[in-house]
Amino acid sequence: MEKINIVDKLSLFNDYWNPRIVAELNGQLVKLVKFKGEFIWHRHENEDEMFFVIRGKFEMEFRNKTLEINENEFLVVPKGVEHRPVAKEEVSVMLFEPNTTLNTGNITVDLTRENLERI
Amino acid sequence: MEKINIVDKLSLFNDYWNPRIVAELNGQLVKLVKFKGEFIWHRHENEDEMFFVIRGKFEMEFRNKTLEINENEFLVVPKGVEHRPVAKEEVSVMLFEPNTTLNTGNITVDLTRENLERI
Repeated sequence: MEKINIVDKLSLFNDYWNPRIVAELNGQLVKLVKFKGEFIWHRHENEDEMFFVIRGKFEMEFRNKTLEINENEFLVVPKGVEHRPVAKEEVSVMLFEPNTTLNTGNITVDLTRENLERI
Repeated sequence: MEKINIVDKLSLFNDYWNPRIVAELNGQLVKLVKFKGEFIWHRHENEDEMFFVIRGKFEMEFRNKTLEINENEFLVVPKGVEHRPVAKEEVSVMLFEPNTTLNTGNITVDLTRENLERI
């Protein structure tokens, strides 16, 4: 049982849209990810997903609105709701979601990441 | 579906050891709490518990060691492990834990908080 420093963990990788696992509890994973650019539209059939901005900001697009998420802010996207993250500049995000969650949800594309690295 | 600003939420209360619920996802609660002073020794039989420091620092005491948790750091306390948070100065903490989690775990005392406020 050790504490985890998220700034240290974020320094270990520089690629985008490729979440790393930093902790697990109660069947949920804590992940860190960097976004830059536009992701794809997708939804998660069975998982709510939490996005907590550590550094920077991004926009979460929904079919009927867009929310800008800044430092010290988080958003919960409920299961079944289509969404698309877009980051004009690099943003570092902490994710909190069940261990069954796939980054591209119901879509499998080049951006899909399975067997995520644990750091 | 709205974003949540944790600094704004933390400004809404000033008491210690009294967690507020700010979000729920996948049967887990996101809570904010302020610590100051010494809590009680307790454990959670069925729930892992995550402590993420937003502002300040505190010490988590275990029976065999103590960890200091600072800003940008978090700790997962596994189910069954006795622990006691101690904060020399006020610290603001985000908690992630199942919605069955009681703040004092296996102990019921004056510090026990049930029916937590949602803010």
